[in-house]
Amino acid sequence: MLSSASKRICLSIRSRILLPRAATIYPAIFQQTLFQSTLTNNAKQLADIDHGKIRIQRSENLKSLVPIKDLIFGRTFADHMLEIEWNANQGWLDPIIKPYGKISLEPSAMVFHYSFECFEGLKAYKDKDGNIRLFRPDMNMKRFKKSATRLTLPDFNGDELLKCLKKLIRLDERWIPAERGYSLYIRPAIIGTQESLGVGATTRALLFIICSPVGPYYKTGFDAVRLLATTDKVRAWPGGTGDAKIGGNYAPCVQTQIEAAKRGYHQNLWLFGAEDEITEVGTMNCFVLLKNEQGGKV
Amino acid sequence: MLSSASKRICLSIRSRILLPRAATIYPAIFQQTLFQSTLTNNAKQLADIDHGKIRIQRSENLKSLVPIKDLIFGRTFADHMLEIEWNANQGWLDPIIKPYGKISLEPSAMVFHYSFECFEGLKAYKDKDGNIRLFRPDMNMKRFKKSATRLTLPDFNGDELLKCLKKLIRLDERWIPAERGYSLYIRPAIIGTQESLGVGATTRALLFIICSPVGPYYKTGFDAVRLLATTDKVRAWPGGTGDAKIGGNYAPCVQTQIEAAKRGYHQNLWLFGAEDEITEVGTMNCFVLLKNEQGGKV
Repeated sequence: MLSSASKRICLSIRSRILLPRAATIYPAIFQQTLFQSTLTNNAKQLADIDHGKIRIQRSENLKSLVPIKDLIFGRTFADHMLEIEWNANQGWLDPIIKPYGKISLEPSAMVFHYSFECFEGLKAYKDKDGNIRLFRPDMNMKRFKKSATRLTLPDFNGDELLKCLKKLIRLDERWIPAERGYSLYIRPAIIGTQESLGVGATTRALLFIICSPVGPYYKTGFDAVRLLATTDKVRAWPGGTGDAKIGGNYAPCVQTQIEAAKRGYHQNLWLFGAEDEITEVGTMNCFVLLKNEQGGKV
Repeated sequence: MLSSASKRICLSIRSRILLPRAATIYPAIFQQTLFQSTLTNNAKQLADIDHGKIRIQRSENLKSLVPIKDLIFGRTFADHMLEIEWNANQGWLDPIIKPYGKISLEPSAMVFHYSFECFEGLKAYKDKDGNIRLFRPDMNMKRFKKSATRLTLPDFNGDELLKCLKKLIRLDERWIPAERGYSLYIRPAIIGTQESLGVGATTRALLFIICSPVGPYYKTGFDAVRLLATTDKVRAWPGGTGDAKIGGNYAPCVQTQIEAAKRGYHQNLWLFGAEDEITEVGTMNCFVLLKNEQGGKV
């Protein structure tokens, strides 16, 4: 938000350069943080994700399945998780599948302060023959790479990560509900783990995938949801991050989401600008079907 | 960012209500997550922060001080940290000062996915008589509360938290550099810790404070920094979160910050809108001094 002071100033700056160009002096924090990964990347070949190097530590205490009627979205988790560490000197280390468990980070880890976090959401289904189905997971990998790049988190080979993901799903296959409308929700995420309060690109990161059996997100099931058109807060804006799937897009919307819910709506229809353009519905995508006055196709 | 599809639609919606108002049906995820804290808050009195209840676990292995010439901003941390847990049923639990150490969270903790994280930054100085000085810490507490509220993180008594903070600083007093230009940087933060992939208000949170001895942020010391006027990416926008000190404001700026650094600039001068209004410099505040043509006051 603009401060009232800056609103009053309204400087019109035509030049993109404010100070005369002198000898290039990178600030201390840039030298030590921002370029560390860039310089290292240029200097030598870093390892990419390699599904062939997966190590698997099976859980010795498999959990009891939760009856599907008791499932709450994103609260029950399967037995295993995938983890792949990254650092700016070596690149991606060997993937590991291990029992679902805690992540320990120092309180100075960058993910706790500056929102170095992006994620994906996709689902595994059982078809009527009992086969496991994913819906266009290559597109999730594509978006995941785009989100990571937007936040200067490390890029990776999406095909290799997808192969790792499939190994995890097969191992936790019993967690995929077979009933219609239910699935195993898969959550890949990357977080910045470097211990630093300087604002710059992280030199260490952790990619993990966890899985959660789920039913419909809303209690109304697949019936229509009620939307409150929202203009006082903005979900996405030109030059912002609305096109990337990053943590920072979510928490700021909850206050407005709660206000909508108090008034009896399921979600916000996020609008933007003088023309009330639609940017998103709640935390989801939306599709619009336009009909002509006779109810036919436009 | 607007999708090209939504740009083409450009619906002009005058009514704030899209569907006829029916019996209020809260979606499942709202019932289970969003309102849990609200309902509990209304139902009973929750505990606020109480500095009188601090428990102190002193470190048995004090670290060696780092020579100030070797300090990198935000990389060295004092011996102790403050932690205060919060949950929607009890409110704030007793504060604890303990040795600086790791935070363990499940991978489903909301802070890793949806950026439930806000923070503050202030400094403790030694004056020439050896007294510890803080600069308007009450204003930091005020902004911290505002940032937390913006993200539906729990509110708290700022005076009580400040008293807790002072206990921590006194315990780690030896980490406050006495040299001019150096100080102990204090970083309070609140993170959402509930294990849930549903997007809603967190029902559990952790407030922590860590401390780091620091010198000037830039190697140029207190000399002028070079700024690149930036308009293609936007740091703050009306209806957004630029007025709150939250994690989500930071990681999205690093890509542009790196581009500026590569061209020899210390930071971005973030501009917004048709009038190129100044919203912020890099990750800092900025002040503008306007002079008339004779170099005098405007």
